[in-house]
Amino acid sequence: MKVNGKLYRSIWAAEDGWGVDIIDQTRLPHEFVTRRLQSLEDAVRAIQGMQVRGAPLIGATAAYGMSLGMRADATDSGLGKAYSALIAARPTAVNLRWAVDGMKTLLAPMQPPARAEAAYRRAAEICDEDVEICSAIGEHGLALIGEAWEKKGKDGRLNVLTHCNAGWLATVDWGTALAPIYKAHDAGIPLHVWVGETRPRNQGAGLTCWELGGHGVPHTLTVDSAAGHLMQHGQVDLCITGTDRTTASGDAANKIGTYLKALAAHDNGLPFYVALPGPTIDWTIGDGVGAIPIEERDAAEVTHVAGGTADGGIAAVRIAPEGCAAANPAFDVTPARLITGLITERGVCQASAEGLRGLFAEGQFR
Amino acid sequence: MKVNGKLYRSIWAAEDGWGVDIIDQTRLPHEFVTRRLQSLEDAVRAIQGMQVRGAPLIGATAAYGMSLGMRADATDSGLGKAYSALIAARPTAVNLRWAVDGMKTLLAPMQPPARAEAAYRRAAEICDEDVEICSAIGEHGLALIGEAWEKKGKDGRLNVLTHCNAGWLATVDWGTALAPIYKAHDAGIPLHVWVGETRPRNQGAGLTCWELGGHGVPHTLTVDSAAGHLMQHGQVDLCITGTDRTTASGDAANKIGTYLKALAAHDNGLPFYVALPGPTIDWTIGDGVGAIPIEERDAAEVTHVAGGTADGGIAAVRIAPEGCAAANPAFDVTPARLITGLITERGVCQASAEGLRGLFAEGQFR
Repeated sequence: MKVNGKLYRSIWAAEDGWGVDIIDQTRLPHEFVTRRLQSLEDAVRAIQGMQVRGAPLIGATAAYGMSLGMRADATDSGLGKAYSALIAARPTAVNLRWAVDGMKTLLAPMQPPARAEAAYRRAAEICDEDVEICSAIGEHGLALIGEAWEKKGKDGRLNVLTHCNAGWLATVDWGTALAPIYKAHDAGIPLHVWVGETRPRNQGAGLTCWELGGHGVPHTLTVDSAAGHLMQHGQVDLCITGTDRTTASGDAANKIGTYLKALAAHDNGLPFYVALPGPTIDWTIGDGVGAIPIEERDAAEVTHVAGGTADGGIAAVRIAPEGCAAANPAFDVTPARLITGLITERGVCQASAEGLRGLFAEGQFR
Repeated sequence: MKVNGKLYRSIWAAEDGWGVDIIDQTRLPHEFVTRRLQSLEDAVRAIQGMQVRGAPLIGATAAYGMSLGMRADATDSGLGKAYSALIAARPTAVNLRWAVDGMKTLLAPMQPPARAEAAYRRAAEICDEDVEICSAIGEHGLALIGEAWEKKGKDGRLNVLTHCNAGWLATVDWGTALAPIYKAHDAGIPLHVWVGETRPRNQGAGLTCWELGGHGVPHTLTVDSAAGHLMQHGQVDLCITGTDRTTASGDAANKIGTYLKALAAHDNGLPFYVALPGPTIDWTIGDGVGAIPIEERDAAEVTHVAGGTADGGIAAVRIAPEGCAAANPAFDVTPARLITGLITERGVCQASAEGLRGLFAEGQFR
């Protein structure tokens, strides 16, 4: 999408023909800095240090990390080393594992001299495939937004509420939840987006607002707690969020607080959609609340808030008493009953086992 | 309640016999600083600069402000000046107006030499009356907590969730929502309190955690978005919040985000209580969502977060892109249907017109 009028992806092959450029997301929204990854180690550091984040982008970066590794050392030992280093960068990232497993399966049978080129080609393909999936999610979501806009009599503006960052910065381009929003904006529907700041890490405030602003989509930031009030007062027409993992029965695990927003949408009779790429459906799990383990992150993310300082730096301030205990569950699960529909690259379906099976005949509850 | 083992109120007559001591709440939780108000101007500044906050405490401070004003100038002109200066300090504070109106009515007919002493006496009475009301709320809430503890088979700990700060710092002592918690803790019930940070001003993180810590009540801070997840996983036994204004039909306006927590409690079959002093019932309004005007505060409270810095100072960091639009509704309304009961100084009642009339026979919808 656009940054200062110029089209970007979140990762791309550098002009030099072998480096890999990324946007350093740890500097956003304060500074737009691109960094060139020139080695396996650079890629590992970018993933570990969260210069890149979002499951699809982590996968793409890991794929390019394998390429950079092969360029330096294409032996079997080099392949093993690159594989292990990337897996260890963020051990729980499913897309990362998927990407490097695929690369290893592709490269291991090859003669070493052929590996680097094949790796670069496959990494580029992974990126293009991700863009294609997100673009398709965007098209299907656009249809929903268009219907909502018709239903509103094309009056005023269409207010969409989202949470966290499921935008192009989390993928390679378009995003998941934001893809329909970008497509609708580009199609001329006068959208306005309510962005919840998404404590504790404020990906809504820092990344989603930055993304939407760069592409020219009107938006307003609020605290996470404001969602219900906005809905009570007719300020929201529909909600779209992303999800990290969807169960076979349509429950969706997403950034902490998504469940509260879905409850408020339900209480106010508003549609609540969840956008997801098919590969994030976990066909092994039915009941999301009972079965999805929720990552408990560092308490300091709750007791402290990081942001830009008056002198242009980035620092954290403490908002709680010294030594205050804090709990930091990173995700919650929105039960399928609160979800109006799932927007996937294959179309929109009911958040239910039947709905999902209708689009993904190959998937089934195991 | 206790601070470092010593009992405090949030405002008290100073040892010198005429000054008024307060806790500077703008320094909490980073520093415990008391300040002595020695003039009408000091009182106005303390209210304006939010060194004191919370409706009952603002009222008490204004009453003492009148006393300080009378001590310096007890003429009719001095009385008029003190009245106007205090009303202007926070024009929308209902308790402030109530307190200074009452003082004016009391003092105006008196001979000037008698005014100062009468003013101090009445200010002290206002404080004691507030403590009595809050203590009674605490007793009635304690009974509910005791029942919940029995119902839980006195197993483990009783988890209470609250939002914002409706504690002793917002009143003169005890608080409203926190009064039952302090009473239960003092009675030996093993309570644990989940405290939502309460963005944008973080009164949960900064004030409630500080209060509870000072009095020795076990507590854990979370982001506001975590409430639903905790409830889904059996980590909450009951919820108690305060309210700024309750309608004649039992709807409750309180700090933004209260509605979302009430929705989550309802969805998980958990009791959600609202604690309030009778005088905050607005008998002129029925439908809270439709009729209570919601204050829209400065966008900078959303785009920035204030806290303690590494070098011991207090500073704000920016979490959004420069120039990002932000909306900041300060309150939301929780409909009566989501409230299990209202805890008042006269007992607990249903959140309904009938319930309220049962306790407050003198009040009725006008």
